[in-house]
Amino acid sequence: MKKHNYSAGPCILPQEVFEKSAKAILNFNDSGLSILEISHRSKDFVAVMDEARDLAIELLGLEGQGYKALFLAGGASLEFLMVPYNLMKENGKAAYLDSGTWASGAIKEAKFFGETVVVASSKEENYNHIPKGYTVPADADYFHCTSNNTIFGTQMKEFPSLDMPIVCDMSSDIFSRVLDFSKFDIIYAGAQKNMGPAGTTLVIVKEEILGKSGRTIPSILDYEKHIKAESMYNTPAVFPVYASLLTLQWLKKLGGVAAVEKLNNEKAELLYTEIDRNPLFKGAAAVEDRSNMNATFLLNDAAHTDTFDTMWKAAGISGLPGHRSVGGYRASMYNALPIESVQVLVDVMKALETKV
Amino acid sequence: MKKHNYSAGPCILPQEVFEKSAKAILNFNDSGLSILEISHRSKDFVAVMDEARDLAIELLGLEGQGYKALFLAGGASLEFLMVPYNLMKENGKAAYLDSGTWASGAIKEAKFFGETVVVASSKEENYNHIPKGYTVPADADYFHCTSNNTIFGTQMKEFPSLDMPIVCDMSSDIFSRVLDFSKFDIIYAGAQKNMGPAGTTLVIVKEEILGKSGRTIPSILDYEKHIKAESMYNTPAVFPVYASLLTLQWLKKLGGVAAVEKLNNEKAELLYTEIDRNPLFKGAAAVEDRSNMNATFLLNDAAHTDTFDTMWKAAGISGLPGHRSVGGYRASMYNALPIESVQVLVDVMKALETKV
Repeated sequence: MKKHNYSAGPCILPQEVFEKSAKAILNFNDSGLSILEISHRSKDFVAVMDEARDLAIELLGLEGQGYKALFLAGGASLEFLMVPYNLMKENGKAAYLDSGTWASGAIKEAKFFGETVVVASSKEENYNHIPKGYTVPADADYFHCTSNNTIFGTQMKEFPSLDMPIVCDMSSDIFSRVLDFSKFDIIYAGAQKNMGPAGTTLVIVKEEILGKSGRTIPSILDYEKHIKAESMYNTPAVFPVYASLLTLQWLKKLGGVAAVEKLNNEKAELLYTEIDRNPLFKGAAAVEDRSNMNATFLLNDAAHTDTFDTMWKAAGISGLPGHRSVGGYRASMYNALPIESVQVLVDVMKALETKV
Repeated sequence: MKKHNYSAGPCILPQEVFEKSAKAILNFNDSGLSILEISHRSKDFVAVMDEARDLAIELLGLEGQGYKALFLAGGASLEFLMVPYNLMKENGKAAYLDSGTWASGAIKEAKFFGETVVVASSKEENYNHIPKGYTVPADADYFHCTSNNTIFGTQMKEFPSLDMPIVCDMSSDIFSRVLDFSKFDIIYAGAQKNMGPAGTTLVIVKEEILGKSGRTIPSILDYEKHIKAESMYNTPAVFPVYASLLTLQWLKKLGGVAAVEKLNNEKAELLYTEIDRNPLFKGAAAVEDRSNMNATFLLNDAAHTDTFDTMWKAAGISGLPGHRSVGGYRASMYNALPIESVQVLVDVMKALETKV
């Protein structure tokens, strides 16, 4: 039976990415060698890395604007550390928006370096909305925000315009919607949602903001060293970068970010319409901040839990249980999830209504 | 034609690892899902991580001795940073043996934290041997060494016994030979030689040495946090960890480290015997420190370079050119390289002798 994979990440990727990457493991580029056994310095892999970096910049519409793309290791969590190391001045300060668990993790690491102003937080309301109407201190070295909160199902629809570098963790919605990406100075994203499998992290850096913190930065954490080494300061995660390239190639063929945004909007509208219509369910996040990537919702009556769980499992759906800090359900609708899978879930929700 | 892959890393892995991992990309554990799209928190992947951690400890003979195994991101280069962060006291000092480029990289990061004593270095002789007869300051917080130097083709045959934690970068020879691994307190190794594809790093830590530096450690760099999270502090590199597990399973079936050491010794003896016998060639590293993993050698007469290069390429050999800092040739004979591939190289060397 066809599976409908709603996993929050690592998550569904295009079928052609699975097929092409499995093939490359047996014989990469007809070289007679596996992608797993070739040198990262080989001509074939350098070409993969270069194309992946260029394509990331192209798909975000950032060509010719002084941005560099890196594929680093360590996940967004290592970026939580690299960002303050590279940008926060000695005795400087940083401004952070606390919109969820991962934003909070980034704040924790920044505090290690210096004064970290939390401009607003929705923690008291279990992060069920994006804080708004905040003021960012004019003397902050940078402002950090999280565009999409995977756990709580909220998404920033607007970003402030500021006279300082803006850093955004886009791990869970990069390449899913059109934004003016040139508003940001650093964008980072763990690959394992819309970009590829787990194991690599895309970092887009506006080069001109670097080298100003006055700090001595350990080599492995220094963006300038990674840029100079063309993302090969040390051995990169060869296979995850290759599978990410295949995913970006798929996205380009589909028509790019604008094309996939249209599909993502249709999927989200289909599901949220049912959540709002069906008297058995309610949404978990504030309506105006709902994420088009992760829809969080609950049964109004917990007594229906077993019946509903049996039904969606029987329909081939996987990965639907909500995160323990929200409960209920979370339908992650990343780029590669087909609208047919959303229809299957909506049909199960309707069927539950008929049944109970 | 069959390829003979002498790449220094990423490098050859067992054929069954390629086949099984390609299959898991199309359908993992008959789940109908790809290993690339499943949650790292799924029961199936937690089982992979647990087995990989247990098997690493088992193959090194370290069960029940207070060691924990972690699969982290960032390569050995990130461990260069994590080791001093976790072990070097404020105003403390560390002792390092400088036996090659990567040892030197580790020293550079340690200096960032505090006094870093280089107990001995072979840098002046282009790292053509392992320094010996050095004294380690008794008040150092730890001693750091590199068991095998991939670039220069040298390997430590003996390790000091010291009254302090011993940390060893075993990136290029872990699981290749029997050692008393319980002499070490931290062993780390990028996967991409004997353990798996690029993208994950094995770290073996004796838990009792942690928590004594008095430093505040950023979360992502804190071994204790990674141990507490059972190597899932953040999303691990799912596929590289899975392919590493497959490689460790292959090694266990083969008979473990003792069995593969015997094969590695036979391969090394075959090649070094020819290097020493053939008047056209000479070894690059001191004979007593020769690595069984990476054999570095040169043509006595550079005029034969083009002929030799044409011949080994025609024989299906790849990855043989030496690192730019040594020149000549480097034959990396990791665990998965069959002795038949070494015989092909030896035959080409003999054929060159006949020809010129």
